[in-house]
Amino acid sequence: MERPRHQGMAKNTYMRWRLPLVCLLWEVAMIVLFGVFVRFGPEADAHWEEEKQKKNITSDIENDFYFRYPSFQDVHVMIFVGFGFLMMFLKRYGFGAVGFNFLLAAFGIQWALLMQGWFHSFENGKILIGVENLINADFCVGSVCIAFGAILGKTSPIQLLVMTLFQVTLFTVNEYILLNLLHVKDAGGSMTIHTFGAYFGLTVTCILYRPNLEQSKDKQGSVYHSDLFAMIGTLYLWMYWPSFNSAVSEHGDAQHRAAINTYCSLAACVLTTVAFSSMLQKKGKLDMVHIQNATLAGGVAVGTSAEMMLTPYGALIVGFISGIVSTVGYVYLTPFLESRLHIQDTCGIHNLHGMPGLIGGIVGAITAAAATEDVYGKEGFIKAFDFTGPYQTRTPSVQGGFQAAGIVVSLLMAFAGGALVGAILKLPIWGDASDENCFEDDIYWEVPEDEESDVYHMHNPDKPASP
Amino acid sequence: MERPRHQGMAKNTYMRWRLPLVCLLWEVAMIVLFGVFVRFGPEADAHWEEEKQKKNITSDIENDFYFRYPSFQDVHVMIFVGFGFLMMFLKRYGFGAVGFNFLLAAFGIQWALLMQGWFHSFENGKILIGVENLINADFCVGSVCIAFGAILGKTSPIQLLVMTLFQVTLFTVNEYILLNLLHVKDAGGSMTIHTFGAYFGLTVTCILYRPNLEQSKDKQGSVYHSDLFAMIGTLYLWMYWPSFNSAVSEHGDAQHRAAINTYCSLAACVLTTVAFSSMLQKKGKLDMVHIQNATLAGGVAVGTSAEMMLTPYGALIVGFISGIVSTVGYVYLTPFLESRLHIQDTCGIHNLHGMPGLIGGIVGAITAAAATEDVYGKEGFIKAFDFTGPYQTRTPSVQGGFQAAGIVVSLLMAFAGGALVGAILKLPIWGDASDENCFEDDIYWEVPEDEESDVYHMHNPDKPASP
Amino acid sequence: MERPRHQGMAKNTYMRWRLPLVCLLWEVAMIVLFGVFVRFGPEADAHWEEEKQKKNITSDIENDFYFRYPSFQDVHVMIFVGFGFLMMFLKRYGFGAVGFNFLLAAFGIQWALLMQGWFHSFENGKILIGVENLINADFCVGSVCIAFGAILGKTSPIQLLVMTLFQVTLFTVNEYILLNLLHVKDAGGSMTIHTFGAYFGLTVTCILYRPNLEQSKDKQGSVYHSDLFAMIGTLYLWMYWPSFNSAVSEHGDAQHRAAINTYCSLAACVLTTVAFSSMLQKKGKLDMVHIQNATLAGGVAVGTSAEMMLTPYGALIVGFISGIVSTVGYVYLTPFLESRLHIQDTCGIHNLHGMPGLIGGIVGAITAAAATEDVYGKEGFIKAFDFTGPYQTRTPSVQGGFQAAGIVVSLLMAFAGGALVGAILKLPIWGDASDENCFEDDIYWEVPEDEESDVYHMHNPDKPASP
Repeated sequence: MERPRHQGMAKNTYMRWRLPLVCLLWEVAMIVLFGVFVRFGPEADAHWEEEKQKKNITSDIENDFYFRYPSFQDVHVMIFVGFGFLMMFLKRYGFGAVGFNFLLAAFGIQWALLMQGWFHSFENGKILIGVENLINADFCVGSVCIAFGAILGKTSPIQLLVMTLFQVTLFTVNEYILLNLLHVKDAGGSMTIHTFGAYFGLTVTCILYRPNLEQSKDKQGSVYHSDLFAMIGTLYLWMYWPSFNSAVSEHGDAQHRAAINTYCSLAACVLTTVAFSSMLQKKGKLDMVHIQNATLAGGVAVGTSAEMMLTPYGALIVGFISGIVSTVGYVYLTPFLESRLHIQDTCGIHNLHGMPGLIGGIVGAITAAAATEDVYGKEGFIKAFDFTGPYQTRTPSVQGGFQAAGIVVSLLMAFAGGALVGAILKLPIWGDASDENCFEDDIYWEVPEDEESDVYHMHNPDKPASP
Repeated sequence: MERPRHQGMAKNTYMRWRLPLVCLLWEVAMIVLFGVFVRFGPEADAHWEEEKQKKNITSDIENDFYFRYPSFQDVHVMIFVGFGFLMMFLKRYGFGAVGFNFLLAAFGIQWALLMQGWFHSFENGKILIGVENLINADFCVGSVCIAFGAILGKTSPIQLLVMTLFQVTLFTVNEYILLNLLHVKDAGGSMTIHTFGAYFGLTVTCILYRPNLEQSKDKQGSVYHSDLFAMIGTLYLWMYWPSFNSAVSEHGDAQHRAAINTYCSLAACVLTTVAFSSMLQKKGKLDMVHIQNATLAGGVAVGTSAEMMLTPYGALIVGFISGIVSTVGYVYLTPFLESRLHIQDTCGIHNLHGMPGLIGGIVGAITAAAATEDVYGKEGFIKAFDFTGPYQTRTPSVQGGFQAAGIVVSLLMAFAGGALVGAILKLPIWGDASDENCFEDDIYWEVPEDEESDVYHMHNPDKPASP
Repeated sequence: MERPRHQGMAKNTYMRWRLPLVCLLWEVAMIVLFGVFVRFGPEADAHWEEEKQKKNITSDIENDFYFRYPSFQDVHVMIFVGFGFLMMFLKRYGFGAVGFNFLLAAFGIQWALLMQGWFHSFENGKILIGVENLINADFCVGSVCIAFGAILGKTSPIQLLVMTLFQVTLFTVNEYILLNLLHVKDAGGSMTIHTFGAYFGLTVTCILYRPNLEQSKDKQGSVYHSDLFAMIGTLYLWMYWPSFNSAVSEHGDAQHRAAINTYCSLAACVLTTVAFSSMLQKKGKLDMVHIQNATLAGGVAVGTSAEMMLTPYGALIVGFISGIVSTVGYVYLTPFLESRLHIQDTCGIHNLHGMPGLIGGIVGAITAAAATEDVYGKEGFIKAFDFTGPYQTRTPSVQGGFQAAGIVVSLLMAFAGGALVGAILKLPIWGDASDENCFEDDIYWEVPEDEESDVYHMHNPDKPASP
């Protein structure tokens, strides 16, 4: 029951040789590179038995695995179910949403293990990995999932893989500049993940502008069930965000604190989202788009500061503001960006990750600048900002300045990188669909033939019901 | 495609100013109260680095975060996905089920952090919070989610927020009486969460009795897909219940034991639910309502005793009985309560939380009364029941008596509190829907317009499309 | 709206007395056996307080609960949500998929606790259980869930319970032979769970061959929404598989390593699945069946070797191969097995568990045979393969041989056991449906009557259908 495509305009979306080739070649490349470079870190290596004795570690529970594995699994769920299902709101793009997210994330985490490994875990010519590397790889891919949200429904799987390759690379460079050169704190990734990912994706979608996208306008909406599937994504992101923001924080109080701050911020965010969703609609009804997305802005916006002494009420304030900003963005800014700036942002990532990410960066800079030994304790202060070695003399206000610089760097990297990648994706070789076929699974997927005719026994409106 | 509402009877369900006002004002109140009162507990504060030295704690893994965080995340999933999706069985109330549950829980956990903080974590004028407070706040909100089940589909979001405000308050008072004054054990909350929540909700729904609810009878059922969504809720509640009942137990053997007992009880409960579901139906077929709900009764019914030496076979017996009681309740008691006592219990919380909660309280009292030093060991006995300080001389049988008193207190608080709150919710200012518009999302939600006509554009093939 | 059944051929599927009887009697048997045999293990018993002092354990965090509980919960989700939802792809068998899986697993874990307890945790006449027993019980039931996949839609709930009883028994015997007699390593269960489960199920379905199954061919496919529900199952299996393969490994580096290897293998597997799914289809489109299933083969295929020093690139290679084998199996082998060998494999478990399980066994044998003290370290080597006591002198190549023997034993047990159980299930007393009623929920379930006609009523009922 292949629906007849519109004449002439149809592009070549045939994936049969291109997609397998990319997948297989790249996976072989991964195997070769892993073979050359990647080995188990000391805590995952069978030599750990000896290592323990050397380092006088008395218990297996001191293995980093037990500090981070529960958070890792939560983050893993956020990347694959959270993002995958959140993007399932489109009525006929559920396979693409969850399936392409699955594909790009599965490739991305491998490439991220390598890229981040070279920058952060490289010793004697080998990348030594452990559970923290798995989390960081997931984080890195999170920024790709965010960018995917902007171009959802308008790109071929090959384009997504190409974007993933480049974005992971640029993400890692940006992350290295921030964390290592600027010595910035960003455990929950407001800057490195959200700001970078969002403005990268927005730049890409701007360059891939489709002037006739209104031809598939009818498929850009949701249906009742697709909205319920999307709520699965929303809730898993919302519930596990405390794990996201605390997953790579220092052991002990920092992880503990990051989880509490995030919990508080997210709770406040729900209330203001509901308030503004109702207020900005004439009939006063709630809009599922806001509930699905803006309720998460609070998690984004405490990403940088969650492990700092933001305090629970500080977190509530951040959540309060970001819920409002995000909801207002969906109502007023998204249409404006589309009509004036030619930014077609399918999921509204500017509202969920862009602006809240910027807020997160700013809140982080302020919180760092306001830090005192009184609030943190003498040793806690040094530990929280890692003011050791060459950074021994850095003051909070200087740290605040570097944090702010991190925002600017992330934005610049996102714009430059997004422009580059957008230009590459514009090449007419990647098999993307024509404007009227966007947001439609059956371009790239075998869609069960009979849904309409058999189960719900509908008929094809294009064919006359009875000849 | 706004469906025409029935003339005259329609109530004012316009939320545009009322709902935002409540959300924003209350959230501002939260921020102010958090600002005045809430601070990080010692294990989440940056001073912990010094604290560790003072207390001679050698490892970060001793931070309570690592003992409880995995359980916390499971409980969090139960509250937001578990309850939210379980209530999604109604054919046209999926947005309301998951969305309003989200709203009330997000508000409730903030208010619960304060209320429980004043009663349990108040030191030198400050509430000091850590991961255990987050769990307890989720628990407290769990009792509101339970009560929500009774009035599902019949209340406005404002009513739910008002109910949450009061119920959290009363929950905390009741919890204080039980745990602190009566020195009762109730880690899994059979009494404080389930019994209290259920009878509170039933009292509320009784007072909000809607005599003409049969006007929306056609919307009170499920459809195929809504039942599958509800099973997501069921399974997450079922799977994570061992975490629920063990989350705030003492470190070590108590948490371990609570998880095992709950695992066993729930397994047995499934078998008897299936048995009675088939047996009580003429055609011998299974009823999804029972599978979705009564299978969980075993978790409720070991809530109090799970951390005690109930033993695995004791847990099986409790699960066995509660599955039967719950299923029989759905078949016989729910219709009776509705027709005779005017208790319209949408989700059948009386069968899932009410009766099993009572069973749980009784089993807890018996298990406590039967405790011996032989079974627990000398030190284990003292630790399990916290027979220290003023309770040093309390005997098991006295403890059993106090446990039983806890049931009575919880019931009385539920009836009195429910009556009060029901009366408040009856005021004609909260924007609830008229009887024929109950169980219908499009009163309070923007529902996608086109589901029926656009996507599935079907007609019934059995009927000729145009004669 | 009971659909009229075909005349004459209809079998007696009336469950009213048979199903309750089996459930209740067996549950009573469980209670009696638990009463006689099952007690808390030392770390879950209240005596642990004293035990700690005796054994000089200084911290509660050393309780095995904290090493394994997060993994346990992940495994639990895989068994109930993972398998339950993965099998939900059929358009009208969602209740059966998730509901019967729930029933058989709930019974199976109880019986597995006993069976495995007698073989592995039996001390002084008592089975002493802790969190590791819960995981192993879930594992054992996993093999039943796999076999269920082969006969999905073609069996009555009683048949499933009977199969569970026997399969759990045989699983435990096989597991005992492998782990205790052959001293084989198989932490992730490539042999004991997947190979055994798959070939057991395939043998059963072969014996239960239904020659006229094409009569229900129209119900064997999926619909759009059922495919999305199935993706929930897929993703939870995929995401939590690192927990599955590491859940019962030795504390410390072994658990850590098993999680990393599995993470890598699964990531690679997605890429080759996508490649071959597109390549093997003329139109080059992706097939949801492959994405839902073959992406998981990488987890199966590192089951045995994950805790060994397989290395990340080794894991990638295993994932690479198993994704290809599994996808090719779905395209070519499943039709062949059905038409030539009369093996009707509803879910294609041969492709997801059978062949990848064999690969897993072989990879495990090779990895073990290739082990050296250099790679593992002297003590790590002994610890990894437990070369202590009577196995002190076993060499890696001998271990490899025993591993290979484990595959053969598992296959033989599966064929013999499957034949026996298939013959039992063929008896005409269990209430299975006739061929034309397979894959249809309303044989055993109360299905909401009105889905098609009522909710979607396609046009507004207030408007007359034909003017």
